[in-house]
Amino acid sequence: MKSDIEIAQEAKMLPIIDIAQKVGFSEDDLEQYGKYKAKITYETIQKAEGQDQGKLILVTSINPTPAGEGKSTVSIGLADAMNRIGYQTTLALREPSLGPVMGVKGGATGGGRAQVIPMEDINLHFTGDMHAITTANNALSALLDNHIQQGNELGIDTRRITWKRVVDLNDRALRHVVVGLGGPMQGVPREDGFDITVASEVMAILCLATSLTDLKTRLGKIVIGYTAKKEPITVAQLKVEGALTLLLKDALKPNLVQTIEGTPAFVHGGPFANIAHGCNSIMATKLALATSDYTVTEAGFGADLGAEKFLDIKVPNLNKAPDTIVIVATIRALKMHGGLAKDSLTQENIPALEKGFANLRRHIRNMSRYTIPVIVAINEFSSDTKAEFETLTTLCQQEGVPVTQCAVWEKGGAGGEQLAREVVQLTQETKAFTPLYSPQDTLLDKTETIAKTIYGAKEVNLSPKAEKQLNDFIAYGWDHLPVCMAKTQYSFSDDPTKLGAPDHFSLTIREFVPKLGAGFIVALTGDVMTMPGLPKAPAALNMDVTNSGQAIGLF
Amino acid sequence: MKSDIEIAQEAKMLPIIDIAQKVGFSEDDLEQYGKYKAKITYETIQKAEGQDQGKLILVTSINPTPAGEGKSTVSIGLADAMNRIGYQTTLALREPSLGPVMGVKGGATGGGRAQVIPMEDINLHFTGDMHAITTANNALSALLDNHIQQGNELGIDTRRITWKRVVDLNDRALRHVVVGLGGPMQGVPREDGFDITVASEVMAILCLATSLTDLKTRLGKIVIGYTAKKEPITVAQLKVEGALTLLLKDALKPNLVQTIEGTPAFVHGGPFANIAHGCNSIMATKLALATSDYTVTEAGFGADLGAEKFLDIKVPNLNKAPDTIVIVATIRALKMHGGLAKDSLTQENIPALEKGFANLRRHIRNMSRYTIPVIVAINEFSSDTKAEFETLTTLCQQEGVPVTQCAVWEKGGAGGEQLAREVVQLTQETKAFTPLYSPQDTLLDKTETIAKTIYGAKEVNLSPKAEKQLNDFIAYGWDHLPVCMAKTQYSFSDDPTKLGAPDHFSLTIREFVPKLGAGFIVALTGDVMTMPGLPKAPAALNMDVTNSGQAIGLF
Repeated sequence: MKSDIEIAQEAKMLPIIDIAQKVGFSEDDLEQYGKYKAKITYETIQKAEGQDQGKLILVTSINPTPAGEGKSTVSIGLADAMNRIGYQTTLALREPSLGPVMGVKGGATGGGRAQVIPMEDINLHFTGDMHAITTANNALSALLDNHIQQGNELGIDTRRITWKRVVDLNDRALRHVVVGLGGPMQGVPREDGFDITVASEVMAILCLATSLTDLKTRLGKIVIGYTAKKEPITVAQLKVEGALTLLLKDALKPNLVQTIEGTPAFVHGGPFANIAHGCNSIMATKLALATSDYTVTEAGFGADLGAEKFLDIKVPNLNKAPDTIVIVATIRALKMHGGLAKDSLTQENIPALEKGFANLRRHIRNMSRYTIPVIVAINEFSSDTKAEFETLTTLCQQEGVPVTQCAVWEKGGAGGEQLAREVVQLTQETKAFTPLYSPQDTLLDKTETIAKTIYGAKEVNLSPKAEKQLNDFIAYGWDHLPVCMAKTQYSFSDDPTKLGAPDHFSLTIREFVPKLGAGFIVALTGDVMTMPGLPKAPAALNMDVTNSGQAIGLF
Repeated sequence: MKSDIEIAQEAKMLPIIDIAQKVGFSEDDLEQYGKYKAKITYETIQKAEGQDQGKLILVTSINPTPAGEGKSTVSIGLADAMNRIGYQTTLALREPSLGPVMGVKGGATGGGRAQVIPMEDINLHFTGDMHAITTANNALSALLDNHIQQGNELGIDTRRITWKRVVDLNDRALRHVVVGLGGPMQGVPREDGFDITVASEVMAILCLATSLTDLKTRLGKIVIGYTAKKEPITVAQLKVEGALTLLLKDALKPNLVQTIEGTPAFVHGGPFANIAHGCNSIMATKLALATSDYTVTEAGFGADLGAEKFLDIKVPNLNKAPDTIVIVATIRALKMHGGLAKDSLTQENIPALEKGFANLRRHIRNMSRYTIPVIVAINEFSSDTKAEFETLTTLCQQEGVPVTQCAVWEKGGAGGEQLAREVVQLTQETKAFTPLYSPQDTLLDKTETIAKTIYGAKEVNLSPKAEKQLNDFIAYGWDHLPVCMAKTQYSFSDDPTKLGAPDHFSLTIREFVPKLGAGFIVALTGDVMTMPGLPKAPAALNMDVTNSGQAIGLF
């Protein structure tokens, strides 16, 4: 059986100009990066403004397990299938982060016959967006520390700096550091830490900004810390929002690539859904909506994380709700949620499936809560049995949602035509979008609503620090911003070992992190980390490159 | 008067395909990055191998002063002028580092009518080479710290790790840090530090590698630290040279851009000449030599740094010495070396010029020492007087070298035709290259030879640490590697305030840094820093971008 990278490298790519023509663009609309990648010019983006009239399909999933779900694979295969049966469809996806690529995943561009390509470029440096974000973030840190070193005119309290440095790597040794050591010529010593780039506020801002002007305004609003009197200090006070915008001027332009079957894909922005808001950029989504009848987009991890943030954070900024939500699951993964060990998944096990369905059921009910049509897509594995699928069909019918198998990993778009037809059908229904909470609700209200309604928690506990922060935030006027939850992706709860659909648990908020430029407050739950670590045997150990420059060991 | 960025933005660029045709390349030889930048494919590079027969012109300068010398400007104008008068000429230059761009310089792509463009792209993220180098460097750090965290099978002594992290920014607060704080799940606490990316060994390796295979071999040889028994540990022992090569596979391909007058320019690799070896990549230089009759290249800072390293480190790797060396000076800068303050430079001052000529004289004698034809190029300023230039001419004649004025800043290539003619003439002379030292000399011999012959020092002092290292290096078999001096660029000595041609000084080596992948040992002299700081009012404060994405505040 061929590996993902072999399939990707054998795929015959079309010149990116040909792909661009499918969304009505000519060569002049593109800034090409090699023959198969391009950014879209600001002129073209501006011309497309206000034309984002297409239908939007949001792909999400159950809580991920080691059994694999294949959300990106299904998103890509679904878009390919829709094009096959005659509906002009474009993808709007996120860019992978090098951290997990070098760590565990080895790649994040779909799988099998359902991939976006050139996969090795997209998984490595792509068009440099992540690096520009890293650089802008760290330039701000350097300018901030320099401001302090040069006299600290703004009176920044070095014990109250909240702005952290970033790298787009999994590097646990950088979580907690002390900088500025070595004497008076080497800066002012203080505690600091590095997040992974995809968790940074600069990434969130890039994904939520609607123009260069909006980007600059948002960057100016970033709070980097406080004075000794606890007054917030912003980037605008440091007067460097222009420089940061300059560093991001190319990164803000959406990237265009293609699937193996030639479907256009805007791959842009890459926030993680566990520690950030987990959706691709507003500008890429709008561009897809403006140039295509149907746009398939994806929100990260399970529907408790990515989809909730898509619906409660991205939708108000996008001014458009999805027309259909696709929840991806595999029978294997549901059996794991039902308690089966990974090595028993190939055997038929109806009771485990029924038990594990609790996870999918809660996601179905959560998504239905927004009054948007929902469909379940089962990503087929050869070990799935007929009886298992029939059981699953009955369970989904009891929830009032359709369920369809697809085989896009093996067959590409040809394996997703039935799903495509049902999805197109559902997008024709007209239903009003029902938000989860009102913008007027307080931070605590919003946190509790998400925890209880979406996660199934019985209560929310605040750490003493979080409780104190809530009071401060009222004084700063930040009490009505949306909440971006940072939580483990493996469970509805803040405990990654609680699979299925846990009940009667308390959700602990250990800290809030204000992100005023992004326009939300992050709530850190449980032990969630904003900088991942590497495993004992990182994927990097298997990576290499041929003499002619072909990648080895991405998968 | 128009600023550099205004001139650059108004310039009518040719499509990069047209530029490529001037060096015999077609569209298939290019990986385009937008319409005006491209990388050259490995296939094309391999085809060009062994054909590097063109003449090579090395541009260097006196020790830099705040008065400005314009070495890049003269290099670019000279190449333009050579093309104007009918000699097919290509540039091989370095890429700017974002650190100084955001800090003091605001840009590093020449000036006036003698610039490489698109200047804003080249000065910001360009084709991502710096970011790839930063990422590869820091991925190694993450993999190294993870190796220790996961059991430290290789027995790395955390007190003896020499590998440092990098950012491509001026960030003094990162010079000395402690990482791995926060408890057993957050890594092992240890001292660490960040260098600027252009000082990193990965940068040096990228610039010295002759192929992807050579790159991987060199990366594998990097020494990252020692065991408790002081045995060196290499990247190959960590088994990650494949992954690092993969991260650098695109960065290793030379970039092609153009000057305002349409001269092809391979801009690739960016090591600083004060703290690194300061020359552009071997692969770019070879490609220029293979595709052009004449190649103009530049070595960083004064001839004591960049040119010495070009001649003693790059030439043995390139297997070719320059055919002519151009030393750039300005009358203003020579008067500063003669003791004048910056605000008195516009007045004629023959005594100051004569006194300051001592700096140029030593560089002329140093360069002549390699038995390559030398010419002095005076970059004209409107305040230069006839009497000053006549004095300078006499002084140069006494040294036996020609001197020519050029006005390329104001007039582009048209202002450099006389210089071009003389340079072409000199390249026709055949003289054998005389190396400064023999490969068999010891590290200490080489260090003393450079210090005494090139710098004019009376002696070399080793710190106790450096002395101890020399003994260790004998045991490791590193005692005959070339030396890469890290020294202030402002003076022949290790004291930046000693202008002109200081004598009777001692040069202090405080530490040696082995760079086995690059194949040399760095000698840190005086207080030289491998991570610069930002000034009180960084250039970043004046940077901005228009709504349509045009840069403001680069210069």
